[in-house]
Amino acid sequence: MEVLVPFSTECPKSRLSTVLDPAERATFARAMLSDVLDAVAAAGGEPRVLATGPVDAVVDCPVEIDDRPLTTAVNAALADRRAAADRPVGIVMADLAIATPSALRGLFETVERSADVSIAPGRGGGTNALAVEHAEFRVDYHGASYCDHRRIADEIDATVSVIDSHRLATDVDEPADLAEVLIHGDGAAAAWLRDVGITLDDSGGRVGVERV
Amino acid sequence: MEVLVPFSTECPKSRLSTVLDPAERATFARAMLSDVLDAVAAAGGEPRVLATGPVDAVVDCPVEIDDRPLTTAVNAALADRRAAADRPVGIVMADLAIATPSALRGLFETVERSADVSIAPGRGGGTNALAVEHAEFRVDYHGASYCDHRRIADEIDATVSVIDSHRLATDVDEPADLAEVLIHGDGAAAAWLRDVGITLDDSGGRVGVERV
Repeated sequence: MEVLVPFSTECPKSRLSTVLDPAERATFARAMLSDVLDAVAAAGGEPRVLATGPVDAVVDCPVEIDDRPLTTAVNAALADRRAAADRPVGIVMADLAIATPSALRGLFETVERSADVSIAPGRGGGTNALAVEHAEFRVDYHGASYCDHRRIADEIDATVSVIDSHRLATDVDEPADLAEVLIHGDGAAAAWLRDVGITLDDSGGRVGVERV
Repeated sequence: MEVLVPFSTECPKSRLSTVLDPAERATFARAMLSDVLDAVAAAGGEPRVLATGPVDAVVDCPVEIDDRPLTTAVNAALADRRAAADRPVGIVMADLAIATPSALRGLFETVERSADVSIAPGRGGGTNALAVEHAEFRVDYHGASYCDHRRIADEIDATVSVIDSHRLATDVDEPADLAEVLIHGDGAAAAWLRDVGITLDDSGGRVGVERV
């Protein structure tokens, strides 16, 4: 399955500004992208980066540049693919730093075997990963997109499978999310965080992070 | 499998104080407990509440009172059960308001079939659910307990299975967690939140909640 991995090259991960400076956030975002591309490939997907601008990193897969907003760019890519071939398409966010091949395989296989649309919800109502085998399905990433995607699927009578995965539900946007990467991650993003001195801080309720 | 559900009757859910008053928090905690007990039973478990004091709610299962700290009480219960019978024991937190029978069944069956210990990590390094089939395994719920439980299992050569589930990773402690209940829940806790006017607020980055 071809799997689009949308990636913003402009000021990525601004909500991490309390712990990482702009250059660090850009480096960390590329480390997460690398981990996601590896996981997609290991799950049997064929990743393609859908970037807002040139990606100044070596990635071992095609890169397509589209500077339009996320929803517009993904819908244009979905329409292109569906017009060219009747094959399912995946869309996996570039900041799923603890995604595993087995979790992604579950997402892909559900659509290859049965459902028209397979959705992995993100924490806070987002949509972290999708697999689509339905010509009319389109995305809308604004707001509580998980609820919107369920509604859009209902409106076109598409069957939906929801993937219950903590690893796919964890997109990395806020400092608390870095704790998940340190606890569960074993790729480039986790290694980079450790290198720059981000460590677990268990002085509060849930474990967070501190920089030492 | 007997499944212990620890439940604190004293000032529960204090981190929800910005949106719920003390009496509301107590009511909401009991609604979540009710949902968890239903899910455990539907997953084939035999729930037993392990409460710090009398539970002033009708629960359709045994209640055992132990006012000691969580780790001490759970370890005493584990030792009792392991001395009486060579059967696995589950421990499921009472605030997993979006836990489904299928997610819990995965946890229970993994231990019944193969692993010595099955762990569902919580967001922020906690341990939200465990199933244990090893005489020497003991819990330690302080701090990043997921990491500690992995270490404890390693030390006694117990095989571990980690359950990757967003629904089991979601314990409800903070206002942002209420969004997960509204988005994914369909039990008493979700209904109660809607009744008191807690709704989704998608004006920020991730969807949160507001009270109207």
